[in-house]
Amino acid sequence: MFEPHSYESVSSWTHDVDVIVIGQGVAGTCAALEAQRAGANVLVLERASGGGGASALSSGIYYLGGGTAVQEACGYEDSPENMYRYIAASMDPLDPSAARDFAMGSKDHFDWLEAQGVPFERTCFKGKAVFLNDTTCLMSTGNEKLWPYNLAATPAPRGHKVAGSGENAGAAAMQALLARCEDEQVPALYDCRVEALVRDAQGRIRGVYAIKDGEGFYARANRGVIVTTGGFNYSPEMVKENFPRLSPTADPLGTPHNSGEGLRMAVAAGASTTGMEGLIATASIYPPGQLIKGIIVNNCGERFVAEDSYHGRTASFIMEQPDQEAYLIVDEEVFAYPEIESAQHRLVDGWESISEMEAGLNMPEGSLQATLAQYNEDAARGEDSFLHKDPEWVKPLDKGPWAAFDISFTRSIYLYITLGGVTTNRHGQALDTNGGAVPGLYAAGACTAHIPRSGKSYASGMSLGPGSFFGRKAGLHAAAAAPLAD
Amino acid sequence: MFEPHSYESVSSWTHDVDVIVIGQGVAGTCAALEAQRAGANVLVLERASGGGGASALSSGIYYLGGGTAVQEACGYEDSPENMYRYIAASMDPLDPSAARDFAMGSKDHFDWLEAQGVPFERTCFKGKAVFLNDTTCLMSTGNEKLWPYNLAATPAPRGHKVAGSGENAGAAAMQALLARCEDEQVPALYDCRVEALVRDAQGRIRGVYAIKDGEGFYARANRGVIVTTGGFNYSPEMVKENFPRLSPTADPLGTPHNSGEGLRMAVAAGASTTGMEGLIATASIYPPGQLIKGIIVNNCGERFVAEDSYHGRTASFIMEQPDQEAYLIVDEEVFAYPEIESAQHRLVDGWESISEMEAGLNMPEGSLQATLAQYNEDAARGEDSFLHKDPEWVKPLDKGPWAAFDISFTRSIYLYITLGGVTTNRHGQALDTNGGAVPGLYAAGACTAHIPRSGKSYASGMSLGPGSFFGRKAGLHAAAAAPLAD
Repeated sequence: MFEPHSYESVSSWTHDVDVIVIGQGVAGTCAALEAQRAGANVLVLERASGGGGASALSSGIYYLGGGTAVQEACGYEDSPENMYRYIAASMDPLDPSAARDFAMGSKDHFDWLEAQGVPFERTCFKGKAVFLNDTTCLMSTGNEKLWPYNLAATPAPRGHKVAGSGENAGAAAMQALLARCEDEQVPALYDCRVEALVRDAQGRIRGVYAIKDGEGFYARANRGVIVTTGGFNYSPEMVKENFPRLSPTADPLGTPHNSGEGLRMAVAAGASTTGMEGLIATASIYPPGQLIKGIIVNNCGERFVAEDSYHGRTASFIMEQPDQEAYLIVDEEVFAYPEIESAQHRLVDGWESISEMEAGLNMPEGSLQATLAQYNEDAARGEDSFLHKDPEWVKPLDKGPWAAFDISFTRSIYLYITLGGVTTNRHGQALDTNGGAVPGLYAAGACTAHIPRSGKSYASGMSLGPGSFFGRKAGLHAAAAAPLAD
Repeated sequence: MFEPHSYESVSSWTHDVDVIVIGQGVAGTCAALEAQRAGANVLVLERASGGGGASALSSGIYYLGGGTAVQEACGYEDSPENMYRYIAASMDPLDPSAARDFAMGSKDHFDWLEAQGVPFERTCFKGKAVFLNDTTCLMSTGNEKLWPYNLAATPAPRGHKVAGSGENAGAAAMQALLARCEDEQVPALYDCRVEALVRDAQGRIRGVYAIKDGEGFYARANRGVIVTTGGFNYSPEMVKENFPRLSPTADPLGTPHNSGEGLRMAVAAGASTTGMEGLIATASIYPPGQLIKGIIVNNCGERFVAEDSYHGRTASFIMEQPDQEAYLIVDEEVFAYPEIESAQHRLVDGWESISEMEAGLNMPEGSLQATLAQYNEDAARGEDSFLHKDPEWVKPLDKGPWAAFDISFTRSIYLYITLGGVTTNRHGQALDTNGGAVPGLYAAGACTAHIPRSGKSYASGMSLGPGSFFGRKAGLHAAAAAPLAD
């Protein structure tokens, strides 16, 4: 059903524009604004009754750096080169050219977002959090301070949270961007579901077939169609295919419209995909940060990930453990309840001795005892020679009683988003399996392959940041494309 | 056909021992020696007419460190901690406990190998090579000097080549180890193909069913069966399933007996697998080292991997490029023919200008020109801000004419070995999908999941080094296991 329709068979077009943008989340909004400002006639087709998409439901964190106004105001040193070094070292990006463009243009992109009215405070949060319940802006949201990445680039916080309140601050950014679209009269149709791309005999994408109010119609795009339809985490079929080991307790983030249809249309029209097995899942143990002083072990009683990792990295390693089980072990001094209640990390029990805890958790005899003995010996010297957790979070866990939280992937509630998607280049052009641009087809945002390939290297804001950045790129490139002729 | 036979149905046993070792490559040999020395009755079953396996056909590089006698004699500083830091930073090992055991025990393991008669010179080679055609021992065979890993651990060469001559020096090590087996009368049957494991009603592995001289027989193992049957690169079916994008021009390394049967028997008996998608492929551009001063670009004219990467890492990135195509670009000053002739990197042509080269290689207009302009600008400052190639290999490529070698995965001859396999723990026990040990079943060597998960993090010697190390572990653990009773 996602096969492109034949251009030559279309008898009438209800719309005839330069650039069609499918989807009005952050990537689509930025693409549409840039394309129209560059002189193109634009038409946005959005499936929901209004713009915003998953971006508006998100916590509103944009990964940006290189010395943004906020970083500067808060006294953090960063540079485009430093930001790129972090990305290159930690993410092994598939397309380092695009990753570098993003790092090099990130500071200016922040200014552009702010110029559109997206509100960012000049404030920062120095603790460990996943999202903030107030309007504070800057926060570390990745593995910048994690060994060995902290050796490759000077750690700087790059999570720029929009000044909206609560977990859904993403809406504040989208309100501003959508207001711009309205001010500038960017044409948009809502409750409009695109069902297929239209392709001509030369393989060029020339428009779309869409449904609105029960009526099908064709809209022609003479310079390009930009797909910005978000991730595929609400497609049970694609999720099952790409993530065979996903827990039934895992829940998708985003909107039900993130059903992967735009991606499938692009693929049916000749685009290739990249990194479809990439997933970021989260059920953070922090806040409070003190829990990072605990240790995370698998059901063999062994540590396997530095506890100060970004929560998505921790989740990725938990997913690889035997039975996907893991426990957070704390002593009385460190004990606290994880604050993110939605994760449902259950307190298993408390025990007077480590050997009782080991038995209570059904771990092999001596395993957890050996792990804790070695950890505590290291910790007494203020180090973690095994997994290189930062000394800031290292203390001997020797103040019993001890307690364990069950943070298993199979039992806690992990929220996830998909990271793979359409292969694109730095201009936002969709690429075919040979690496050539599919003529007339662009893609940006969560329907494309993210810069980080997996939850191990993800950082919060690596969807909205690059999504908005490459949305702009796609809009500009499409607007500048030579109009297609018959 | 790989389903285990029922122990209770076996009416007679032709052999009744403590430990059965399947395969007599390096892992099996080390396992058998250690098990027998620990007092176990051992039986080795080898499919070929003599011992050695793929280990004897290899270039004989053992990845070892932590301050071995050779490292010390050659003036290199290394420590177990330093070696572990390199592995942890570059390989993201699935089982850091096992990886650390390997690093911590590596120096002693070198001494043990030498005590068995495996010959290692106190010599080192400081250049860039893939294998050595003489008996020189020590060489850098991984990404130790590559950014950012060189920040996480002090670079030290850890490839210890056996003092045999040529590309197949691996035989010299196996001759020594097999001589030990003969001296110590480790029982072995040759031309003997194991067809199935034998499992009892409690799920414990109790022996094997094998064929020799056309006759099937059962051999009982009361303490354990150790599977050391090598990789699966000679199983077209498993290769096709796990590496859908493998080039038809790629050739497997090893012996035709690396058909994955041991792995499939272990899986059929309840073992899980890990990292089956891992592959190390090689068709190195060096030697000569000067070619590293060239740049590697894809068919979009863009660089994507630091050229001083270990050749297996380079290959992994080439495999991800559009059409899996890549070119090595050199100027007249750097020009040389790649010395490894088997790789068949074809000289495409020479050109008087970069724009002509770009056209000659069918790259998008301006693409290669932009890449070289930026590279040369950086190189003039003695740096590579894009991919962080070490300054040692950076010089402007501005002395025309220019030439290109086709190093595409799809056209050159890449040799590969598989990296995934049976999931094991640090004792060499085979693990089930829940992380529990499959009673009575062990595995070591190339039929198990390697410490490096992919060619991006592999280092030459990471098969023979850990294979021999964990082969010993498995032999010792099996010999010490309580004998199984009915």
